[in-house]
Amino acid sequence: MTAKPEILKVTSTARSRLFNVEEVELRFSNGAERTYERLANRGRGAVMIIPVTENNEVLLIREYAVGLEEYTLTLPKGLVDPGEDEHTAADRELKEEAGYGSRRLHTLKVMTSAPNYMGHKVTAIIAQELYPCRLQGDEPEEMEVVRWPLDQLESLLEDEDFTEARAIAALYMTRDFLSRKYTKSS
Amino acid sequence: MTAKPEILKVTSTARSRLFNVEEVELRFSNGAERTYERLANRGRGAVMIIPVTENNEVLLIREYAVGLEEYTLTLPKGLVDPGEDEHTAADRELKEEAGYGSRRLHTLKVMTSAPNYMGHKVTAIIAQELYPCRLQGDEPEEMEVVRWPLDQLESLLEDEDFTEARAIAALYMTRDFLSRKYTKSS
Repeated sequence: MTAKPEILKVTSTARSRLFNVEEVELRFSNGAERTYERLANRGRGAVMIIPVTENNEVLLIREYAVGLEEYTLTLPKGLVDPGEDEHTAADRELKEEAGYGSRRLHTLKVMTSAPNYMGHKVTAIIAQELYPCRLQGDEPEEMEVVRWPLDQLESLLEDEDFTEARAIAALYMTRDFLSRKYTKSS
Repeated sequence: MTAKPEILKVTSTARSRLFNVEEVELRFSNGAERTYERLANRGRGAVMIIPVTENNEVLLIREYAVGLEEYTLTLPKGLVDPGEDEHTAADRELKEEAGYGSRRLHTLKVMTSAPNYMGHKVTAIIAQELYPCRLQGDEPEEMEVVRWPLDQLESLLEDEDFTEARAIAALYMTRDFLSRKYTKSS
C-alpha cells in the first residue's frame, strides 16, 4: 500500500454561512506536489433513511432541491443534532419529512458523496415497523410521500426525477439486505 | 404536482478557485420563504466509468481522496473536457486513471450527488471490450488497479475503503444491466 501524501499546509480560502473552502498543499510519496481544494467538514454526522413498509414498499419523498432547481424523488435525510445518536436522528427526520416513526432501525453502510472534494459522510439506515407520526421540522412545506415497491427498483431508475446516487445506492443495498434476511430466516 | 418555488434573488457570497457559493432566496408556493446556500455549477459535465472485463470483473482504482485524507477504492471518473462528448471523456479518463481503453461504451444513468447543495451531475458509463492503453493525465501518481468480480459486490461493500455512493450505485446498476442483457440474449 502506498504511503499517504504528506499534508504540507491547509489554508481557508473562502467561507460562507454553510461552506468553508480549504486549500490543501500535498506532497505525494513519489515527490509530486499538488494543491487541491476541498470543503471542510462541518463536523456533524448525517443520516439517510430507507423506510420500508410491511408490504415491501419504500417511502420516497418529493423534495425541492435548490442545487437542481427541481423537485426530486429521494429518501428522507438530514443532519444529526447535537446529543443525538444516528438512530434517534433517523427516526426524527423520518417523522419530520415523511410523517412516520419507526420501531426498528438498522444501520446499513456509511457512504461518502464526493471524497475528492469533501469529507462529508452519510449513514444509510433502514427503518421498518413504521407508524404514522408527524413532527414539525424546519421544512418550508410538507413533502409528498411516494410509495414504491422495492422489487420495482428498475422502473424507478428510469424516472428522471430519481437521480441521487446516495438514494440509488441505499435502495439497492436495502433490497439486497432484505432478500438475504428473508432467505436466511425462511 | 406542487408549483416550483419562485427564486427571488441569487447572490454570490464566497468564491475560490474551484467553488462559487451562492445564496438563493426562495418563496415556496405556500408562501414560506427560505434562504439556502448552494455551490454554483461549474458548467462542465462529468463521467464515472465502470470498466468491465470479459471475465465479468470490474476495474476499481485506489485513489487518494483529500476530502477524507485517505486512499479510497472507487471507479475512474473526471470532467468532460471542452469539445469532448461524454463517451470520449470516459475513454480518456479510463486510459489516464486505469491504463485501459474501451471499444464499447454504454451510458447507464445520469446521477446527482447532493442536489440540495449543488447542481453537479455525473453520467455513469459502462466500458467493455477493454485493451491496455495508458494516457498521461494530470494525476500525481499512477493509481493501483484492483480487479473485483461483479458477482462479489456484497463483499466489496464490506470494505471500509469502498464508500462512494456514486460508485456503489454505478456497480449495482451495472450488475443489473449486464444480467438483463445476458438474460435477454440467451
